[in-house]
Amino acid sequence: MERKKITIVGVGLIGGSLALQLHEKKISSKLIGVETNEFHAQKALELELVDEILPLDEAILDSDVVILAIPVDSMVTLLPQVLDKIDHQIVVDLGSTKSQLVDAVKNHPKRGRYVAAHPMWGTEYSGPQAAIRGAFEKVAVAICNAKESDTDAVEWARNMFGKIGMRLLEMDAYAHDLHAAYVSHISHITSFALANTVLEKEKEEGAIFDLASAGFESTVRLAKSNPAMWVPIFKQNRENVLDVLNEHISQLRKFKSCLEKENYDYLLELIEEANKIKGIIK
Amino acid sequence: MERKKITIVGVGLIGGSLALQLHEKKISSKLIGVETNEFHAQKALELELVDEILPLDEAILDSDVVILAIPVDSMVTLLPQVLDKIDHQIVVDLGSTKSQLVDAVKNHPKRGRYVAAHPMWGTEYSGPQAAIRGAFEKVAVAICNAKESDTDAVEWARNMFGKIGMRLLEMDAYAHDLHAAYVSHISHITSFALANTVLEKEKEEGAIFDLASAGFESTVRLAKSNPAMWVPIFKQNRENVLDVLNEHISQLRKFKSCLEKENYDYLLELIEEANKIKGIIK
Repeated sequence: MERKKITIVGVGLIGGSLALQLHEKKISSKLIGVETNEFHAQKALELELVDEILPLDEAILDSDVVILAIPVDSMVTLLPQVLDKIDHQIVVDLGSTKSQLVDAVKNHPKRGRYVAAHPMWGTEYSGPQAAIRGAFEKVAVAICNAKESDTDAVEWARNMFGKIGMRLLEMDAYAHDLHAAYVSHISHITSFALANTVLEKEKEEGAIFDLASAGFESTVRLAKSNPAMWVPIFKQNRENVLDVLNEHISQLRKFKSCLEKENYDYLLELIEEANKIKGIIK
Repeated sequence: MERKKITIVGVGLIGGSLALQLHEKKISSKLIGVETNEFHAQKALELELVDEILPLDEAILDSDVVILAIPVDSMVTLLPQVLDKIDHQIVVDLGSTKSQLVDAVKNHPKRGRYVAAHPMWGTEYSGPQAAIRGAFEKVAVAICNAKESDTDAVEWARNMFGKIGMRLLEMDAYAHDLHAAYVSHISHITSFALANTVLEKEKEEGAIFDLASAGFESTVRLAKSNPAMWVPIFKQNRENVLDVLNEHISQLRKFKSCLEKENYDYLLELIEEANKIKGIIK
């Protein structure tokens, strides 16, 4: 795989972690950061996530590949602008929702240069300081609507994700957004809501967190996630997230009803049903 | 701390992990297991969690300390029987609920020999094979209604938990059960319900789990937990769990309402509120 000059737009948790991998796996010959947040730009240089920070136009001119790693609302605005500016470059986005983005550039004359991707990796932290070495390895990445991308562009993206150890999946953008609502977005909502449930109680009972266990931390850690990233995701994937949230509330009501009616046989059944998740996640 | 002959009733995840620590930290001179499940008894010997398996009566006669690590419904039945049988022995339980247990032996002539404890540790696995070396370290343990225990008994329990690296908390059994509902029991219910939400969908959409991320695994891992342990916990702590579950459902409804009304400012506020959990869990 020939090394390329790569621009990363948005050098935060995702963009920064990818930059580390692109360098480590010798995929990039040069890494340029585009970053509107001055503090993040400075940090990205200090942490040597990128070789230099440039304005977008200059960065594009000097690159073979442009990777977008910004919140999905900014992405929908920026992607068509980037496609307007490019010539031969490949453009890849790493956003958590795909339908609106793919729709936004459906008829763009440079559509073929763009590859829609979602690596299923993240942490509850944000910013360049949160970037991690070895991220993305053994994790799934969804490439959406690959047929709308030029062969060379999608091949490069496949090779790049493969070289950093990701498991490639190809799917339609609508299917992606539905599935992501189930296996990612709803987890964040339950975690935010769980944090608020307990924080509400803590106002009365200061000592409550002294008892917090690893199980609690595990279910609530996503509640630390960055609202600037998540509000746009929920907004763009509103209908799917609402469907899953309704289903989740109705599942919780079954537990509530068991307790109210003291129907412990059915409670046992519900838990045994939930245990089937053992067959699916390790 | 003088080494003692210790019986562990229930050599599963919790009892087995404690046995490993009691041996490792030189707290026990001999470890006796009492285990009604033949397969678990055999495994506990094979894994050298205990030195021998004995019937309860013989085990008590040969012990200085009896530790109960069985589901909380069996505990309520067995604890008074154990107190009937003991003489000088110290009895400690490790159950996840405390009120019913403490109430069940409130007027027992041997009440003083008993120490009510709940180490805030566990995993989603069960049985002696799930026992882990180094468990309990740096984790909180609640000792409840210590004033109802004899000084020598509670002192021994404090020293034992301290020696295996636990952080001691003392509280009333009712306060414990309320707090445990918030920082442990509700996490399990949300996780069970989340698993059922996604498993329900998976019947239609086989590929959904290909996309599962670490975030999803983190929020759903508790859904693997053993129903034989958890149904009795929810049963005994029914009222507190129902209160928290109602609060949690109403918090989820706020997210639902934001999405339905497309009120993204309030959604941002809800997430920023949830982010305050950062100040509480590391």
